[in-house]
Amino acid sequence: MNQIDSLDRLINEFSRLPAVGKKTAQRYAYFLLTMSENEVKDFADAMISAKENIHYCKICANFTDKEVCDICSKPDKEPIICVVKEPKDVSALEKVREFKGSYHVLHGVINPLEGKGPNDINIRSLLERVKNENIKEVIVATNPDVEGEATAMYIANLLKPLGIKVTRIAQGISMGSELEFTDTMTLSKALSSRREM
Amino acid sequence: MNQIDSLDRLINEFSRLPAVGKKTAQRYAYFLLTMSENEVKDFADAMISAKENIHYCKICANFTDKEVCDICSKPDKEPIICVVKEPKDVSALEKVREFKGSYHVLHGVINPLEGKGPNDINIRSLLERVKNENIKEVIVATNPDVEGEATAMYIANLLKPLGIKVTRIAQGISMGSELEFTDTMTLSKALSSRREM
Repeated sequence: MNQIDSLDRLINEFSRLPAVGKKTAQRYAYFLLTMSENEVKDFADAMISAKENIHYCKICANFTDKEVCDICSKPDKEPIICVVKEPKDVSALEKVREFKGSYHVLHGVINPLEGKGPNDINIRSLLERVKNENIKEVIVATNPDVEGEATAMYIANLLKPLGIKVTRIAQGISMGSELEFTDTMTLSKALSSRREM
Repeated sequence: MNQIDSLDRLINEFSRLPAVGKKTAQRYAYFLLTMSENEVKDFADAMISAKENIHYCKICANFTDKEVCDICSKPDKEPIICVVKEPKDVSALEKVREFKGSYHVLHGVINPLEGKGPNDINIRSLLERVKNENIKEVIVATNPDVEGEATAMYIANLLKPLGIKVTRIAQGISMGSELEFTDTMTLSKALSSRREM
């Protein structure tokens, strides 16, 4: 594109990032060239050392730089597991500061169209954790889309026979949104899940 | 934020990129962790080698990995210089494939509010080039904002006494846009610059 090989290579690397097209990648690359050599080295080193140091927690499969992550290591956590699709969902839920249990990261959801079945995501270890950690409740917090719902159903069917309480995060209209602009599926869920005041 | 130092460090580095906030930076960082170790090393290496190999062309100050960039090295280029603010403007103009002259990258514009005067941008070498390269015309293609206009005026005042033709890229309504939604400044320029059909 620019007839400068190393620039094209850098733009290509940046355009691998999610939702980054050629134009944004070029913007990032040009910006990088305005940084000092040391700053660029620090950036590159941050990438390599993050990749080297961070792996999955051997209990919940969230990212951690220890063997067991900080959340799983807490001594006073409640016997509740919140099941999520990805590590970034943990970070979103942790911001709420209300949940005192631990997490379980599936690293994907059941998606037959992409050939992803229950064995392709991190479900088997959930079953073991539920048994070993004396868990009272499993909250399934996968996204409210077709795959997320299917995965939630699968987990519920798997755990209920063991006498575990399986719950699903509530669906309804978001805070601050307007009925007028809310899609019908969401409105329908909001109506059917109505609560007495 | 995540209580994982190397992850926080990586997120901080990504959030230095232009128009990247904490949330996007986190998305990029999590994505990077899903890449293989070799892929991350390639990415980091692309950053370092781009920074090491790419510098300013000694004639036009555009990015290049040679001493003189490919455009400046062309033997049959027309004696016209197109003056732009940044390297990415060269890449935008080169896509048009109509301009056969060379470029001159200012690496900034005159901006009194930021304390940037004519000596803080790459103008002096433009004057030398105009004399040495027997240039017939200088097209000023800085952005049509206050600073871009001021810089264009400055360059015009500098070069006109030398008998050089100094032109400015045309301003008017963009292709495909609608009069209804065009701002008044642009409409005013489009009217005053009207051409006979």
